[in-house]
Amino acid sequence: MRRFALVLNTRSDTYAAMARTTGSHSEITGPRIREAALRLFAKHGYAAVSMRQIAREVGVQVGALYNYTPDKQALLFSLLQGHMDELLAAWEAEPRGADPLARLESFVRFHIRFNLARPEAIFISYMELRNLEPAPFAAIESLRKTYEQELEAILAQGRDAGVFQLDEPRITAFALIAMLTGVNTWYRADGRLSEPEVASLYWDMTRRAVGA
Amino acid sequence: MRRFALVLNTRSDTYAAMARTTGSHSEITGPRIREAALRLFAKHGYAAVSMRQIAREVGVQVGALYNYTPDKQALLFSLLQGHMDELLAAWEAEPRGADPLARLESFVRFHIRFNLARPEAIFISYMELRNLEPAPFAAIESLRKTYEQELEAILAQGRDAGVFQLDEPRITAFALIAMLTGVNTWYRADGRLSEPEVASLYWDMTRRAVGA
Repeated sequence: MRRFALVLNTRSDTYAAMARTTGSHSEITGPRIREAALRLFAKHGYAAVSMRQIAREVGVQVGALYNYTPDKQALLFSLLQGHMDELLAAWEAEPRGADPLARLESFVRFHIRFNLARPEAIFISYMELRNLEPAPFAAIESLRKTYEQELEAILAQGRDAGVFQLDEPRITAFALIAMLTGVNTWYRADGRLSEPEVASLYWDMTRRAVGA
Repeated sequence: MRRFALVLNTRSDTYAAMARTTGSHSEITGPRIREAALRLFAKHGYAAVSMRQIAREVGVQVGALYNYTPDKQALLFSLLQGHMDELLAAWEAEPRGADPLARLESFVRFHIRFNLARPEAIFISYMELRNLEPAPFAAIESLRKTYEQELEAILAQGRDAGVFQLDEPRITAFALIAMLTGVNTWYRADGRLSEPEVASLYWDMTRRAVGA
């Protein structure tokens, strides 16, 4: 799990370079605050990070942070919500096949590709959910449910078409999403297998798991 | 994820009742400290919990905590190590079939049963790994690897016997453990499906995923 910090360090350098090139215009402060918060939350945990630390990381006064977000809780919610919005929009835009089997393959490859591209956001989406207050927690859970239902619908369609052998589309969706998300805990870009090779392995397992 | 706190509340009451019945003998302080730390870490996160809070929860002076553990880091390590030791010992003691297919079924049912019985320990085992310093982190990773290799060996044996269709026993082990551990994020004891029914669903998926 330690590699998340490394990924974020690289990104932070990119943002710092952007800031040097373009000047500290207010329109780039928002993304830089989000980036710094994401990096610090992923590294130390939400509870251990203060608004003051985030400000120091961005290189602004803490007052500038409060121009952007009312408090740390709102910042965490905004990061998790932004991540889920991006996930749902990307899946919506993803080209997918006409039949349930092709759509299931699209989902598997999309999920792995999307998650491996943003390990830090995936990490805090799982780790910091418990630190949301009830109303924002419910909002994120609802977005997550929407995504799970996309897979559940594909599974139910395939079952109804007689292509998939499964009794419980919802539980099967939970099981497959957990399996696919697990790639983030072990995959390394410099490892033996490329991302498409890993996706193919997981697609084989998925296809067989649903009896297709 | 909120339900973890509820589970722990119940347990804490049990420990409090024990303490009232048997008196505050030093031999029960250790388990009570571990229980309080587990509950507080699961609820608020390791970083947000102080030794003083743990002492207050147990109902002892903070000095009594330092008679039991050198510091909070050692306490976290001890909890995670204790959990992994218990997992490995329980799997070692688990009755299992003679052939790879029967052994794989034993593993699936064991993993789900063991994890559902201790949601709080599973929760912090995943959530607080990042808060371990490098040496304790490596020690826990090594125990975790030992467990993963148990499944990997079953998969490799089944593949060599021609019973399972899979190319990558290690990655298949990662995928299956992630899938099985995911049960903890959605299962409810008062839900529609019993634990053995859920285990049977996951066993069906697992068996098919490995082409058996």
